[in-house]
Amino acid sequence: MPPSWQALARAKRQTITNQIPPSWRIDEPPYSESSSSAADRPTAPTDTEHQQQNITGTYPHQFLTPREIEITENDVLDSLNLIHSGHWTCVEVTRAFCHRASLAHQLTNCLHELCLEQAIMDATHLDSYFEQHGTPIGPLHGMLVSLADCYHVKGMQTSLGYVEWIGAVEGAEAGLQSEVVKGLKELGAICFCKTAVPQALLGIQCTNNIVGRVLNPFNRRLSSGGSSGGEGALVSQHGSMVGMGSDRGGGVRITSSYNGLYGLRPSTGRISHQGVRTSMDGQDTILPVVGPIARSISTLRLIMQSLLGAQPWLHDPLVLELPWRTQQEAEILSIINSPAHDPSSIKQLCFGMLRTDGLSVPQPPVQRALRMAASALIKKGHRIIEWDPPTHVQAYQVALTTFLSDGGKDVHKTLATSGEPMTESVRLLYGAAPVAETTSSSIMATNKQKRDFQVAYLKYWMSTSAVSGTGRPVDAIISPVSTSPATRTTGNLVDGHCIWVDVLDYTSVVIPVTSVDKDLDALDMATQGGNPLDREVREDFDIGIYEGLPVGLQVVGQRLQEEKALALAELLVHALETL
Amino acid sequence: MPPSWQALARAKRQTITNQIPPSWRIDEPPYSESSSSAADRPTAPTDTEHQQQNITGTYPHQFLTPREIEITENDVLDSLNLIHSGHWTCVEVTRAFCHRASLAHQLTNCLHELCLEQAIMDATHLDSYFEQHGTPIGPLHGMLVSLADCYHVKGMQTSLGYVEWIGAVEGAEAGLQSEVVKGLKELGAICFCKTAVPQALLGIQCTNNIVGRVLNPFNRRLSSGGSSGGEGALVSQHGSMVGMGSDRGGGVRITSSYNGLYGLRPSTGRISHQGVRTSMDGQDTILPVVGPIARSISTLRLIMQSLLGAQPWLHDPLVLELPWRTQQEAEILSIINSPAHDPSSIKQLCFGMLRTDGLSVPQPPVQRALRMAASALIKKGHRIIEWDPPTHVQAYQVALTTFLSDGGKDVHKTLATSGEPMTESVRLLYGAAPVAETTSSSIMATNKQKRDFQVAYLKYWMSTSAVSGTGRPVDAIISPVSTSPATRTTGNLVDGHCIWVDVLDYTSVVIPVTSVDKDLDALDMATQGGNPLDREVREDFDIGIYEGLPVGLQVVGQRLQEEKALALAELLVHALETL
Repeated sequence: MPPSWQALARAKRQTITNQIPPSWRIDEPPYSESSSSAADRPTAPTDTEHQQQNITGTYPHQFLTPREIEITENDVLDSLNLIHSGHWTCVEVTRAFCHRASLAHQLTNCLHELCLEQAIMDATHLDSYFEQHGTPIGPLHGMLVSLADCYHVKGMQTSLGYVEWIGAVEGAEAGLQSEVVKGLKELGAICFCKTAVPQALLGIQCTNNIVGRVLNPFNRRLSSGGSSGGEGALVSQHGSMVGMGSDRGGGVRITSSYNGLYGLRPSTGRISHQGVRTSMDGQDTILPVVGPIARSISTLRLIMQSLLGAQPWLHDPLVLELPWRTQQEAEILSIINSPAHDPSSIKQLCFGMLRTDGLSVPQPPVQRALRMAASALIKKGHRIIEWDPPTHVQAYQVALTTFLSDGGKDVHKTLATSGEPMTESVRLLYGAAPVAETTSSSIMATNKQKRDFQVAYLKYWMSTSAVSGTGRPVDAIISPVSTSPATRTTGNLVDGHCIWVDVLDYTSVVIPVTSVDKDLDALDMATQGGNPLDREVREDFDIGIYEGLPVGLQVVGQRLQEEKALALAELLVHALETL
Repeated sequence: MPPSWQALARAKRQTITNQIPPSWRIDEPPYSESSSSAADRPTAPTDTEHQQQNITGTYPHQFLTPREIEITENDVLDSLNLIHSGHWTCVEVTRAFCHRASLAHQLTNCLHELCLEQAIMDATHLDSYFEQHGTPIGPLHGMLVSLADCYHVKGMQTSLGYVEWIGAVEGAEAGLQSEVVKGLKELGAICFCKTAVPQALLGIQCTNNIVGRVLNPFNRRLSSGGSSGGEGALVSQHGSMVGMGSDRGGGVRITSSYNGLYGLRPSTGRISHQGVRTSMDGQDTILPVVGPIARSISTLRLIMQSLLGAQPWLHDPLVLELPWRTQQEAEILSIINSPAHDPSSIKQLCFGMLRTDGLSVPQPPVQRALRMAASALIKKGHRIIEWDPPTHVQAYQVALTTFLSDGGKDVHKTLATSGEPMTESVRLLYGAAPVAETTSSSIMATNKQKRDFQVAYLKYWMSTSAVSGTGRPVDAIISPVSTSPATRTTGNLVDGHCIWVDVLDYTSVVIPVTSVDKDLDALDMATQGGNPLDREVREDFDIGIYEGLPVGLQVVGQRLQEEKALALAELLVHALETL
């Protein structure tokens, strides 16, 4: 008799624990769900005095040496410079991050695999190379990269959050690697761990039956978000220099926002998605993309520049032969660096300000973040217009129709094999049993709806040259990432603030803007909406729970405008710093 | 009671005839099918002495003035130079091409619409502009462009070869225009006619129930090819400077080959397809593209450069922001222009030589064209390797599954409305009645098969650096366009020489290489294949019918390598000229 799904999950949890050296284990970790699966314990942990809800800041310092803190909290580009100049070794840096990742896991359940030994071997190899040649092996030499559990990595398993796929041989034994993982390694990155994703890689929470719920480091009563929730929790706890996530509807972006991080959702065809596992593979109407999550824009840019410098189109037929175009960012970066005292001397930019996804009005802290962004940009001499595009509800409907097109067949079939129960997020989408699939004609109709939306949207965008005040269409859109600062560990608010970007295949950069503040974020009925979903959104808003949570926003550029969008996001970050 | 489909088709044919001024009508045209529909007369015309089979060359000169011949047979770029320097007027040039187009239609049934009055008005406007400003309105000022009957043009109908859509209001009354048509007009082109396409834009013949069969100008017993058969017949008769066709499986390429012309199938996302009508719209696995057909590579390049210079990505969200990259063609063009006497001084290129589509071995003239191309390139100092990729039968199957995915619903539904019968080409694909549609899961599986093929193909292509002798992967593939020099007007040979390019979304340039020659193209069983399809191919090969027919080949580059592929095609043209 094959082992039960519970036994498989328990064994996997134990494997992760065993991968943590005993000296790194926290003797009495504050209460968390790490020892049980979500299915075992369906309710969120209650607020007891044994709980440390916010484990960011200096909390984890008690488990670390000063040197480990120095290494893991340093600016990533500075750290790479120290490695590339021979001041730091890869081995020391790797060990520090592995230690910190192991703490992060013990506090938030964020890992599916920690490959300490292999990482140290890789680091040793890099150090030897440096010693021999006096130069780094590539631009990412010594960069610690964590990977959401949808990437195939040689020697690691790929679960996609399914118990069924624990021990899957693609990476573990067959040695299959996602193209982007190969690329990262060739550039000198050390891929040292796999991070938790929700069951089937679906949902804006990060819950599966393997590690249970991944908790938000800013408030462990909340979720770290999905689908790349393990990455969000890990990177925000300084457990990794950069996390590679997956995004089809917000995976990178929601996670970045919920965890106070920077994230990039590039357009499809810019970074390789080849050999990355996904649900409903072959559903090509709305494609998943991979994207980086980090603690600075500069890290995101470095990853993109480095990956594109390796010409990924030579290995992935779906990647466009489109090198990093520095001229597309140069002008904007020069604005950032120009003297601030005379706004009239700089090139004026215009941003479209999106206040709602058309389904509901976001909660007060999100609204305030939008106001802050607008003020900061105006103060720097730029312009803001209200963004009033073709309704995003169309995009939401195209996405829903698309995600439901197989009637849940793919997910139900995989779950049935192991017998593990559905998580709440998956059940909300796919119900208790599969339903009839849609037909070719329906899919064609949806594809046409998508295209019509894309066409109407571009037309609207181009039309803003008449009202932008710059003579050009708006340079980017500023948009919420999510209705709320984070999701509870159970229950999902319906949220359309991300999906329109996927339907349009635009480029989105998430930046942290502010934190929830009970003195500033009281509910104001004058600014909240009045439809039934708005009521749910209002009822969800409990300042006592959300207090202190980070709030991010999206800076959205057109398709394949990664260079420009990152530069504009950086400009906004600078503007917010001097607000 | 609404008019019968026969009455509708008859009225449309009469309308086309009425658009031809009486003085341009041929009193006793040699026998052709122009006065009847294919459905009325299902057999091919017999070879009587009233037939003039080959109406290329000097045959039509009897109906033209020397000046009209001079204008319509001049090199297109030279003609534009003469217009742009004030030596020729647009009105005179337009009138000459309209006259010649009207002759072409009377001899081969190639038109669906001839808009003489509007064209003269447009030409007058351009001449006035030139007189006033002393410069052309754009790089295509005065270029006569014909459009396959799938483009929407203001003031013209769009039938897609359906009787049902005769009088369709999209362009005619609603004024809708395909983006690429808008672009062409803004650049100064004169869109003066619509050309015949097969019913539903499907098939490698060009037969519909409106004008009947479009005949091949080199031998009117044969078809001009599909789907852009009207363009092929028109351009090869000097009835247009450039024809815009449509290609999903060979439309532009087959037509170019059958009519001795140059054609470009760009990758999707390079030229706008927005607002171009197609069958199974929304079927996004294998997308249709638009492409130009002309009498020289330089004309194809001018069209591409001009269209991209107008930044079509500002109007079509599916067009990539990818300007014309002159550096990608410069090196190759410099090889062409380097002195020929010392092959060792030039950069050596390597081409992969594809001999068969994996379904059957092409007929002798096609094999000879391949040998000629190889000899010409070798003589110039370049290299040839045999192209042995993942079997193209996979691509053929992906395409067939995709095209059949709606069970014929789209086509059957449209035909049922008017009651017109199916053409043979359409019936071969979709049968007498619609069948069950495929489901979402099947389409996902097909999409995965497509992607696997793309991945395996790129891997093979990259692997050729080990055998190319240049240290690089091959620069392009030389491939047949079709199994035979042309198709009969009934019956289709199964042919996979084009579809793999669509599945891979590669760039293909067709060039004319040779003509069928009874002294050179005898069947040689040693070089023919032995499977059942091969037998059909052999039985089809009747040198008496094919004698004199042009034979083209494809020069295939990777995705979005339009600049490079055109330059390599030009290099091959030059090499063949000195063979």
